[in-house]
Amino acid sequence: MKAIITVMLKNGVLDPQGEAVKSALSVLGFSEVNGVRQGKVIELDLANGTDELQVNEMCSRLLVNSVIECYTLEIM
Amino acid sequence: MKAIITVMLKNGVLDPQGEAVKSALSVLGFSEVNGVRQGKVIELDLANGTDELQVNEMCSRLLVNSVIECYTLEIM
Repeated sequence: MKAIITVMLKNGVLDPQGEAVKSALSVLGFSEVNGVRQGKVIELDLANGTDELQVNEMCSRLLVNSVIECYTLEIM
Repeated sequence: MKAIITVMLKNGVLDPQGEAVKSALSVLGFSEVNGVRQGKVIELDLANGTDELQVNEMCSRLLVNSVIECYTLEIM
């Protein structure tokens, strides 16, 4: 089974990577871009029968900094 | 409108970030993790009426290195 975790900075937290991408797109002439946020996606290949609670524990202990980041979890 | 671009390393391309996460999870006792791949997700806030072709051009010109990365695009 697979788990896909998408981690984004919370709203209001400065996102320098996103700002850099936005200004680079602007330099390239893509003026239709109003804003950019960049996050990370982590794909876990898990042993069958792994509990969703386990994955949430991985997020809280290692993968996500809950002070500044939020995440969504999809199990497939 | 919004575009969400998910960029992952192609299969077969070494993913040192993913390997680092995998070994850190293993150290923490999460032995059910067989593999980890890490990618990035870019959320674009776009002017209404922006064409999907435009977003694909942003990907090929700046956001995605097509030699080693592949991406999926979702427009909302």
